[in-house]
Amino acid sequence: MRDFLPEDVRRREYVIGVIERVYESYGFEPLETPAVENIETLLGKYGDEGNKLIFKILKRGEHEATGQADLALRYDLTVPLARVVAEHQAKLPRLFKRYQIQPVWRADRPARGRFREFYQCDVDSMGSTSPTVEAELCAAVADALTALGFHDFVIRLNHRQLLTSLLNYLAVSPDLHSSALVAVDKLDKVAPDAVKKELCDRGVREDSAASLIQVMQAPMDLSSLRGFDDAGQRAFENLQRIQELTAGTSAGDTIRVDLSLARGLSYYTGAIMEINVANLAGSLGGGGRYDNLIGMFLGQEVPACGFSLGLERILVVMGERGMFPPTLAMTPADVMVAVFDAAGLPHAMRVADTLRRAGLRVLVYPDPDKIGKQIKYADSRGIPFVALLGGNEIAAGTVTVKNLRVQTQQTHEQAAAGAAIKEALQRD
Amino acid sequence: MRDFLPEDVRRREYVIGVIERVYESYGFEPLETPAVENIETLLGKYGDEGNKLIFKILKRGEHEATGQADLALRYDLTVPLARVVAEHQAKLPRLFKRYQIQPVWRADRPARGRFREFYQCDVDSMGSTSPTVEAELCAAVADALTALGFHDFVIRLNHRQLLTSLLNYLAVSPDLHSSALVAVDKLDKVAPDAVKKELCDRGVREDSAASLIQVMQAPMDLSSLRGFDDAGQRAFENLQRIQELTAGTSAGDTIRVDLSLARGLSYYTGAIMEINVANLAGSLGGGGRYDNLIGMFLGQEVPACGFSLGLERILVVMGERGMFPPTLAMTPADVMVAVFDAAGLPHAMRVADTLRRAGLRVLVYPDPDKIGKQIKYADSRGIPFVALLGGNEIAAGTVTVKNLRVQTQQTHEQAAAGAAIKEALQRD
Repeated sequence: MRDFLPEDVRRREYVIGVIERVYESYGFEPLETPAVENIETLLGKYGDEGNKLIFKILKRGEHEATGQADLALRYDLTVPLARVVAEHQAKLPRLFKRYQIQPVWRADRPARGRFREFYQCDVDSMGSTSPTVEAELCAAVADALTALGFHDFVIRLNHRQLLTSLLNYLAVSPDLHSSALVAVDKLDKVAPDAVKKELCDRGVREDSAASLIQVMQAPMDLSSLRGFDDAGQRAFENLQRIQELTAGTSAGDTIRVDLSLARGLSYYTGAIMEINVANLAGSLGGGGRYDNLIGMFLGQEVPACGFSLGLERILVVMGERGMFPPTLAMTPADVMVAVFDAAGLPHAMRVADTLRRAGLRVLVYPDPDKIGKQIKYADSRGIPFVALLGGNEIAAGTVTVKNLRVQTQQTHEQAAAGAAIKEALQRD
Repeated sequence: MRDFLPEDVRRREYVIGVIERVYESYGFEPLETPAVENIETLLGKYGDEGNKLIFKILKRGEHEATGQADLALRYDLTVPLARVVAEHQAKLPRLFKRYQIQPVWRADRPARGRFREFYQCDVDSMGSTSPTVEAELCAAVADALTALGFHDFVIRLNHRQLLTSLLNYLAVSPDLHSSALVAVDKLDKVAPDAVKKELCDRGVREDSAASLIQVMQAPMDLSSLRGFDDAGQRAFENLQRIQELTAGTSAGDTIRVDLSLARGLSYYTGAIMEINVANLAGSLGGGGRYDNLIGMFLGQEVPACGFSLGLERILVVMGERGMFPPTLAMTPADVMVAVFDAAGLPHAMRVADTLRRAGLRVLVYPDPDKIGKQIKYADSRGIPFVALLGGNEIAAGTVTVKNLRVQTQQTHEQAAAGAAIKEALQRD
């Protein structure tokens, strides 16, 4: 797990702020859940592999010695959401749209770009089966990525029922569907022959496996889907409707129906989405409709659909591509106040207070070190201005402002120095 | 542990935002550490009681069955800071000023206003022994509370060495000092006689205990401290200097030297502070100088001083006092787009997009329910405007905007509706 030093935090906060503003503009509301859930809430929701990756917390007090766990760390943001909807249903609106940006923990082996603590940015709509929901999620995610400066992303769109109908059409036995989709989901990372072999290993007939891969790799010809069963036909119409609804939004030109998109998680019931950018293996995020999950907690179905953006991958790509705005403040302060001796320090505190009230970020150098050393420190930290308070300045109520960028200095009335520095900050 | 529903999150984010802005204005930089630390990092840092309250995480995989823990949840923000300074020393500036606002976890029995997951807002300066550091912390905390609307707070100030010298002066044996301070720390919550009894129970002679309580309850007469040893005298001068340095800041009028302030934690080495408001038992936060803690991790002393604000208590008091600004947006959106039939939904998506580009927060009602039901929904959510898109509006490229607050409606060109709504939002 990682420490985030100041520059890391500033970059992360910038990205989170952009995503939050976009999600707020769609009427999504913020939700936060505890890092710790009851262990029963999480076990069994993420498959056998997931169960192993959950961090489990020892019972406390006299039960600690039993070695048993009763709590666990949040593993994703979807299961806690389902629990919240079940637990607080009376307090939540009928159509509940929420975003949630919090860390999750998985006991995965750490690897490049994969961490045991990482942030997810989830956005979900509960309470409606309308394809407007899917369209809005695509538009919101597209707006967020556009606002961050991405212009080459593609939203791949598919439908679980379309996959089911396709597998039925190709005579894959229903009990093999889930297993087959796990293999198919690797088509963007693994060679087709290897996927075909895996399909066969999982029990799919060789001719079915070959046809499946052929259909998925062919250019998408939607008319070929006309031969499907009714459920497949309705799924196809659902995808058409989602595309129609996004036409007027920033997602409009980015959506591609892609039959090879499967998504790993078993709880999806309808449309599924994934977002990709050029030259990046894997996705920046994905989601889909899951109309049955909340019912597992509530005992009553609540339709739901969501999308999860991977903050860590977004940060990696933005870093590699130099996408952070140059105006992102990375310095600890706009101005540092320096004094010549200890007697000057109370004056430094007072002048710093005046400069802060003018809207500046101000550092007071805490010790009466040699002025050269103090200025060198400001320079090493990238602080562009030093406010010097010598005996003359203190006596006259002035302050000498040194501009380290252009190497000039000027003396101001203390009350006027803030405005002068702000102006120079924007100019130089 | 608690779920934070949208209104809770908005209030919390507001308070955190104010505190962050103030801390940034003092040149403090953001730091974030993982929720999970190695268990050895935490054990032994918080006393025996603390050890019991640490949430411990089971080993994973084949070691899970051993019932052993190797990781633990963050218990405060100070110990992780000390670890970070030791671990990343080469990357950090010589004078490192950081703030950190993150949750911590303690397996305490939950009680009113006490939770097992709660946020701390810490601000610390590393690398200088100057009293400027203490003065700046007091000023920053005072600015933050003032910005939140608190005007009745007092910063109590004391010094660990002053307490030591006082205990020596009253002939309390040095090996009883820590224990005596635990008792003395209760003087703001427990009757003096009970504290005196506890002091005696802890081994302090009755006459010493009586004098100690008498000195602590007397109006602060600093001249009485002149009889102390040299170390006590220097501590007294340090407090005087801190007061002198805060004179020009918003902390200036709020600082009171208070000999009865002891602070529980054992790692403090110099000045200690606590902040109180009227009619609230206990404090809103506290801190002090701890020049030896980082050395425990680094093997080399780094002077440090910090202050921790309790976010949960601040929120409780602000809620009770009605201190949240009325402008704090609590509604999910500024405007809801409603349509008369399914054919209108793609137009709704497009108009919503236009309104968002005008800077509004826009909800699209996802289903073509009866218009009355849709408007009722907007009203129930506190959304002040509904944008109606009927057949006439769609054909004419207009939209009818209903103002639910003043019950008026007006038809606008779609491109102009955003500006009109923004104006009305500010007016009505």
